[in-house]
Amino acid sequence: MKPAAITMGCPVGIGPEIILRFFDSLTAAEVASAPVVIGDLGVLQRTASLLGSISQPVAWHLGKKIMPGTVPVLELSQLNVDRLRWGQPTKETGIAMAAYIRRAAAGALNGEFSAVVTCPISKKALHEAGIFYPGHTEMLAELTGVCRFRMMLAGTRLRVVLVTIHEPLAKVSGLLNAENIHDCIEMTAEALRQDFGIDSPRIAVAGFNPHSGEQGMFGREEIEIIEPALRQHKGGAEVSGPWPPDTVFHKAANGGFDAVVCMYHDQGLIPFKLLHFQDGVNVTLGLPIVRTSVDHGTAYDIAGQGIADAASLRAAWRMAMDIAHNRER
Amino acid sequence: MKPAAITMGCPVGIGPEIILRFFDSLTAAEVASAPVVIGDLGVLQRTASLLGSISQPVAWHLGKKIMPGTVPVLELSQLNVDRLRWGQPTKETGIAMAAYIRRAAAGALNGEFSAVVTCPISKKALHEAGIFYPGHTEMLAELTGVCRFRMMLAGTRLRVVLVTIHEPLAKVSGLLNAENIHDCIEMTAEALRQDFGIDSPRIAVAGFNPHSGEQGMFGREEIEIIEPALRQHKGGAEVSGPWPPDTVFHKAANGGFDAVVCMYHDQGLIPFKLLHFQDGVNVTLGLPIVRTSVDHGTAYDIAGQGIADAASLRAAWRMAMDIAHNRER
Repeated sequence: MKPAAITMGCPVGIGPEIILRFFDSLTAAEVASAPVVIGDLGVLQRTASLLGSISQPVAWHLGKKIMPGTVPVLELSQLNVDRLRWGQPTKETGIAMAAYIRRAAAGALNGEFSAVVTCPISKKALHEAGIFYPGHTEMLAELTGVCRFRMMLAGTRLRVVLVTIHEPLAKVSGLLNAENIHDCIEMTAEALRQDFGIDSPRIAVAGFNPHSGEQGMFGREEIEIIEPALRQHKGGAEVSGPWPPDTVFHKAANGGFDAVVCMYHDQGLIPFKLLHFQDGVNVTLGLPIVRTSVDHGTAYDIAGQGIADAASLRAAWRMAMDIAHNRER
Repeated sequence: MKPAAITMGCPVGIGPEIILRFFDSLTAAEVASAPVVIGDLGVLQRTASLLGSISQPVAWHLGKKIMPGTVPVLELSQLNVDRLRWGQPTKETGIAMAAYIRRAAAGALNGEFSAVVTCPISKKALHEAGIFYPGHTEMLAELTGVCRFRMMLAGTRLRVVLVTIHEPLAKVSGLLNAENIHDCIEMTAEALRQDFGIDSPRIAVAGFNPHSGEQGMFGREEIEIIEPALRQHKGGAEVSGPWPPDTVFHKAANGGFDAVVCMYHDQGLIPFKLLHFQDGVNVTLGLPIVRTSVDHGTAYDIAGQGIADAASLRAAWRMAMDIAHNRER
């Protein structure tokens, strides 16, 4: 199998740091399937000195063998490291990080890479570089030619998929409809089967209101929107709900469901981050390529201090490889 | 110290069952401070036979010594047990359970009981008995003459206090204002000091929108309502926020805060039930009496089967005793 590509993310965030920590953590068995980094060799070399990392960044090109103890870097930028300041993105760093993403997407589409694992970018830096996507995922969707995609957060105990994401909570009720919920259910079912190898996935659909509205007493979204969406499911998964939001995650985390479809960002993210604060993975459903991401941000406040945790990157890479294997079968 | 009073709750729910399990779990040291039950002796005796419980329900009156191995019952109803069916409340059971609550509140107000611990009732049964309170807590508030109260859910790892409770989620934004949030912060601070013995409480106030709105990008409740509420705090606690909802509970559960003030039901209940599904306690803040409650419902679907878990009742009783002791000091 081809290597996965890790995009370096924002050059002045914690991306370079967690990439080096991640390579240092690879076992001998894992080195054989090590990923390549799409990023900036100079930045990674400076970071390696700073951290005293064991693994040494080296230039890499397609087809070149990956040597143990190295961090193979496909160079997509040559930033002037003397002018970079940790935590202070510039127009140049924004342009560079966008280039990493474009190259990774193209390489995954044409079969050079088995998967794309992304390190964090900041939307602000992207916008300052004149690149106007709402976020990473939307950019990858456009680069791979899809308009139907969903965000899953996945960990060993819990998987959640979001119907709405970065929306003001007061507007969410108006954004829900049977179609987007049904769509989310079907994409979740497909991902669980195809990407996670679960033949008969059990999917819980969360309600929207306290106690799922208690028969309409505290809101009618369950009756008018979520139940009709559930009825559209035609098989291929065991889909149930709407479940009371305050108990469904406990059930799911204890093995009752393979994933929970959530109506709004915090409904899914609050329980997910409580269980998977360090090792959560963001998986994009619906893309023609395999894409996972760390589930944290650029952490500008701690970048360059050598204290960032690579657990989420490690989990994201492992999950990307598992998904790529499952899709190949 | 006077005994606590446990109200039996709905006679055909799991209340009688968990009360017997609870008495069976009392240690020798605890028997000296055992609570009394306000309920129905016949129902408890029938339940004791059914469960084969060790502790035997006996009639009790004020001033009577509590004997080890017994469940002291202050009889407030004599329901015809032959006509009762588990899970099927009637007008009579509704009237009876309301009587238990009234007697417990009166006894706590006049010093007969050190605290009130309530077993679950069903609103529907209460309404069918012609008693129209939105719930248990509102009834106790009226019986004890207060109109300013809040619900806290408390466990060993997390305490959450709710600004709004049983409201349709789409209406919550319109119900939030700086006054009710400020009020909730102050009642939380007072409870942590007075009831939980924390001299300098650290209170986190959660935001409302994803990422707390990200400077107004996904909603303005943080800027327009929550921040002004935070500025009203005049000291006596370390109050901070608005915190991003998806990370604040992880911080709190790991010791960063003594309580989290939550804007809506599921914001607090989702993380709380994930950590304290079995042993969570509902504490009413603002009452002149000490009142805790189990944090589950009547569980009509499993009543009478001997499988209900008494962990929440046990935790509720222990917490009530701790609060009563702290208030006495």
